[in-house]
Amino acid sequence: MFKKILIANRGEIAVRVIRACREMGIKTLAVCSDIDRNSLHTKLADETICIGSANAKESYLNTYTILSAAFHKGVDAIHPGYGFLSENSQFAKMCEECSITFIGPSSNTIELMGNKVNARNIVKQMNCPVMNAIENIKIDEIHNRDIEKEIGYPVIIKAVSGGGGRGIRIVHSKEELYTNILNAKTEAENYFGNAELYIEKYIKNARHIEFQILADNHGNVVHLGERECSIQRKNQKMIEECPSSILDNDMRNTMGQLAIAIAKEVNYSGVGTVEFLLDDNMNYYFLEMNTRIQVEHPVTEMVTGIDLIKEQIKVAAGMNLDIKQEDICINGHSVECRINADDADNNFIPQTGLIKQLILPGGPGVRVDSSVFNDYYISHYYDSLLAKIIVHGKDRDEAIKIMKRALKETEIKGIKNNIDFQYNIICCNEFESGNYNTQIIS
Amino acid sequence: MFKKILIANRGEIAVRVIRACREMGIKTLAVCSDIDRNSLHTKLADETICIGSANAKESYLNTYTILSAAFHKGVDAIHPGYGFLSENSQFAKMCEECSITFIGPSSNTIELMGNKVNARNIVKQMNCPVMNAIENIKIDEIHNRDIEKEIGYPVIIKAVSGGGGRGIRIVHSKEELYTNILNAKTEAENYFGNAELYIEKYIKNARHIEFQILADNHGNVVHLGERECSIQRKNQKMIEECPSSILDNDMRNTMGQLAIAIAKEVNYSGVGTVEFLLDDNMNYYFLEMNTRIQVEHPVTEMVTGIDLIKEQIKVAAGMNLDIKQEDICINGHSVECRINADDADNNFIPQTGLIKQLILPGGPGVRVDSSVFNDYYISHYYDSLLAKIIVHGKDRDEAIKIMKRALKETEIKGIKNNIDFQYNIICCNEFESGNYNTQIIS
Repeated sequence: MFKKILIANRGEIAVRVIRACREMGIKTLAVCSDIDRNSLHTKLADETICIGSANAKESYLNTYTILSAAFHKGVDAIHPGYGFLSENSQFAKMCEECSITFIGPSSNTIELMGNKVNARNIVKQMNCPVMNAIENIKIDEIHNRDIEKEIGYPVIIKAVSGGGGRGIRIVHSKEELYTNILNAKTEAENYFGNAELYIEKYIKNARHIEFQILADNHGNVVHLGERECSIQRKNQKMIEECPSSILDNDMRNTMGQLAIAIAKEVNYSGVGTVEFLLDDNMNYYFLEMNTRIQVEHPVTEMVTGIDLIKEQIKVAAGMNLDIKQEDICINGHSVECRINADDADNNFIPQTGLIKQLILPGGPGVRVDSSVFNDYYISHYYDSLLAKIIVHGKDRDEAIKIMKRALKETEIKGIKNNIDFQYNIICCNEFESGNYNTQIIS
Repeated sequence: MFKKILIANRGEIAVRVIRACREMGIKTLAVCSDIDRNSLHTKLADETICIGSANAKESYLNTYTILSAAFHKGVDAIHPGYGFLSENSQFAKMCEECSITFIGPSSNTIELMGNKVNARNIVKQMNCPVMNAIENIKIDEIHNRDIEKEIGYPVIIKAVSGGGGRGIRIVHSKEELYTNILNAKTEAENYFGNAELYIEKYIKNARHIEFQILADNHGNVVHLGERECSIQRKNQKMIEECPSSILDNDMRNTMGQLAIAIAKEVNYSGVGTVEFLLDDNMNYYFLEMNTRIQVEHPVTEMVTGIDLIKEQIKVAAGMNLDIKQEDICINGHSVECRINADDADNNFIPQTGLIKQLILPGGPGVRVDSSVFNDYYISHYYDSLLAKIIVHGKDRDEAIKIMKRALKETEIKGIKNNIDFQYNIICCNEFESGNYNTQIIS
């Protein structure tokens, strides 16, 4: 097992990884930007190195500095968390070349699945349903193509190197197409360093269902059921739950086995997520694969009793997966709400400010993953996630009731946040009935 | 089901009951003393009435004021929590006479088991082992009795109306006996309003094992396994766990069935605890029955998945127990540490002061039951419990590891507390091995 792990991240996911390491007896090295010197992940780690300025490019995205810190402090492995360098195949490759374990799949697999058109083609060859698409958009050809006939409006423009719902455009008619492609191209170039785009059929009333995969380096792969992540705003997930109220066991098994097959096809190792969209007629389509731990992983942990970060570290260290598919069962129901510092009344603009009074929820069935505390300053440099409130009940009804009371007892003063907004979603009829889709927040 | 419940308590247990009520859709009326106006239980309750001054006799123990509040606000039921009025049979009787449901067993049962000599005799008739004892001490006769022969030193002097480990004296020889009896008599009179004492054989290296009982008003009784509560200081529990590492399933079943039989014998209803001592040779002896919810109830909830407060409220409302004994299973392992505001370096003297920085633990496997927050003032009026940190792991080893990291990440500034002391116990060999007894803290 690893002796020391560098956590190349910040915020709640850095804290989450440090917690797992502590319980496993592994030393932790935190890295931080200069405005994060007094953050919770630096408090909790065994050691901390400040690696640069607040701008993530100078710190959390600075591969050379992070690898220098790793060498300087003698770490065996690097955990990238989510975001930042977690799906950067070049960084994974650098780690491999330096004989430092990158806790995730191989750089090859990251690269393979990081190209969303590649990923589509891989699963298509396996007879996994994908949406109709134009995979190679040539701007000067687009005027000559009949998108309505080839795919049918509405369509969705995505970056080939994108993912996570970032930088996408929904187009409802021919008239909107060209401008959107041009804008998307610029955005893709800026955000992902790759201007390539593809166009897919857009399913309006879709449900977002994703399967959690866990694989070791020896060919063993299991799935840990699905997460329903259809509560989104502008393609960003806000509330997740497990299990989904729409899947029956047959479909869960079919899609889960497919997710396993996809993972095996790309020699997957570690934790990963195979994302699907479900249309009105319960047809599923492969969306993308995320080759890292996800924000919403706790709902899976709550119902399976399996600590995904510990398992991720164990398989990264070369250990055999000791969980068999038949041993995995889903107990009760879990829901997660992402509490963000944003102004729900004003287009969800991210807020900055000092947290002046913080009372996080507790008691039975409540888990909080957070890195904020009293007098902590929320800057504009990083994402606006303040806390994840995760609940577990014996069934969906109880889980929802626990979430309601947990949100009601949470107090965050000094900075605007989305607690009331989340509470209203949890209380609305569509959510309570389980009969909702990605259009629930219009 | 009840529409509104008055919570005749404060602190974390009042918060705990309010949480359960919220999830059940029951309105809550908090009562508070004048220094508790801004405490968490008053923040979270739907309504609050201030019922008197800080001195508990004038507020939380003032039966008339509490009943007046109940009438004034139209509540159906009163939850007494633990401590204060929870085992006061007269208050339970007053509630019964006022047709307000006292959430607990009947006043008769409380009275029956509240007299510890009565309780001993009831279980003795059922062939349940009890320790040798002198049940009726007459001061003027004591000089003529041969305690060494009758029971054998060491012995323990207890108040007939006592319980919860309060006001007891351990006596090792004839020379110490008389003075201790006199002092215990005065103490019993002052604390419990009844000077009667009894003397029991004292088992030095005992383990304290208690069984959680749940009974409805219709004769259905189940047990929810045991709690091991041998980590005590001056007979006050500090750390509890479930399951006990010393009981095998046969013994668990035998003792559990005995606890059920005792509950049935006294027409028990609600949640209750049958306490036993275990000697070196695995002989068990009835200690006492607590006719209320206990501080350490969460460890049982963590391993059974059953919310004891909700069940308590449901059976108090006359509902049938819908849990069958065969459905109850113990999943994994749970440990609770009581975090107190006391000075472990100075004889555990309770501390007063303002909490200046509070970071409570979170993440997977951690539950916190607390009522304190930043800038909360801890007064000398009530007990020194700041928070209960409860963890759950897939086995005892994992639970201990989670507890270690949870304690290490807890930060409470502004007031001395026992976190470091608790951490040291959790790390000591005796605790880790599971091979410990009530003498672990000498």
